[in-house]
Amino acid sequence: MPLILLTNDDGILAPGINALRQELEKIDGLEIWSVAPDRERSASGHAITTYRPLFPLEAKIPGARTPCYSVTGTPADSAKLAIDELLPRRPDLVISGINHGSNLGTDIFYSGTVAAALEGPILGIPAVASSLDLGPGADYGLAARFTADLALKVLREGLPPGTLLNVNIPGLPEEEIKGVRITRMGRRLYKDQWDRRVDPRGRTYYWLAGEVMELDNGPDTDVSAVAEGYISVTPVQLDLTRQDQMDRLRNWNLKV
Amino acid sequence: MPLILLTNDDGILAPGINALRQELEKIDGLEIWSVAPDRERSASGHAITTYRPLFPLEAKIPGARTPCYSVTGTPADSAKLAIDELLPRRPDLVISGINHGSNLGTDIFYSGTVAAALEGPILGIPAVASSLDLGPGADYGLAARFTADLALKVLREGLPPGTLLNVNIPGLPEEEIKGVRITRMGRRLYKDQWDRRVDPRGRTYYWLAGEVMELDNGPDTDVSAVAEGYISVTPVQLDLTRQDQMDRLRNWNLKV
Repeated sequence: MPLILLTNDDGILAPGINALRQELEKIDGLEIWSVAPDRERSASGHAITTYRPLFPLEAKIPGARTPCYSVTGTPADSAKLAIDELLPRRPDLVISGINHGSNLGTDIFYSGTVAAALEGPILGIPAVASSLDLGPGADYGLAARFTADLALKVLREGLPPGTLLNVNIPGLPEEEIKGVRITRMGRRLYKDQWDRRVDPRGRTYYWLAGEVMELDNGPDTDVSAVAEGYISVTPVQLDLTRQDQMDRLRNWNLKV
Repeated sequence: MPLILLTNDDGILAPGINALRQELEKIDGLEIWSVAPDRERSASGHAITTYRPLFPLEAKIPGARTPCYSVTGTPADSAKLAIDELLPRRPDLVISGINHGSNLGTDIFYSGTVAAALEGPILGIPAVASSLDLGPGADYGLAARFTADLALKVLREGLPPGTLLNVNIPGLPEEEIKGVRITRMGRRLYKDQWDRRVDPRGRTYYWLAGEVMELDNGPDTDVSAVAEGYISVTPVQLDLTRQDQMDRLRNWNLKV
């Protein structure tokens, strides 16, 4: 029976992971374990905890028919501890999400959702990261159904080593979603990113803020797909080597 | 005059960033600003701080002839705040390091050093991340000279958008270093990764631990190069799209 690790960065109590767990629990022949941070840990990137130990605790989630655990650490900690120590055996698939908010373009470097999923490919296990764009029509039920279907497809078809699928679902009601696009990573920047203030003692401090400013986004990017009402599915690789620069750098003749 | 942002994940007081600053200060015609976390923030990944504001403070570093600031946040926070708000203008190059310990293979996902450097390419600025492997002969002076030379080369030659160079220097005295290799990202895993204990109240907890277990490392990888006594220089890309899987995924005919 395939074993699925379900994790996220919004915490074990978040609506996204629970919608997805409920959807997966409807499918016969799957074993599901949910292991996620004990609280919201968005924008954690791939941080791991080395100065404190981690406590895993069984989480009592109303209605859950499969094991649920919280971990006192980051998303990557939770996925790593689950795979190495908590699950009864090595999982066949890691699913992270459904995140509250999209993870498009360069967002994926900051995303705890994607980082937790990447613990799969790092250990040779396929993975899916799934995020729901915010919007008045955002529907975790729809996002959960799409992600569960995709998970079954990945279990059947497999993914090459070192690969995950990064899924983003528009924040629209089902009837307004136009379809699914296989996409590449776009680019997303934030402008006026810092809110500068002065504290009561006269010291300057900054809040990270800012509005999304989209750039360089062809129709084949994740950013454009979601903006146009399509679900985006981006294959993401673990090998970050920029192969096309290797010969050029060799010609620099670097010496000690 | 080219402006360089110098940052790291070991904190503004760490020996690596100061060795590198001193080396760069010897070069005429460079403007250098050092902005780094106020304390060690290793293994931060690309975490950013959204629940607390950040305080930048001028750091009094003995002997420093160029501006130095600490930031009460992660490595990525420090680089981002420096580029957006603290520096007098947009820098021409971001250098992160010299890290205390190597960042090889999949380590780069967890590395605060690499994350801080990546803030450069995210904003269209070239970057170098530099790390010194631990060992009895580890020499920050040598690492600083090599990294400063490479920085000048990058300023002269440029890097394509979305690229950084990830440099690792063996922990050996200069006379034992065999040369420089342009490498691809290898793979590095850790075995027996968790130390399981029980607290005085009977609760199980885990410390992240473990020994390096190297895998799948051809002679062209960063992992092998450093193990064999070579400095490794790996070109790293921002675009994580696995292009070779896009047609295959299109054939899955995913539907809403």
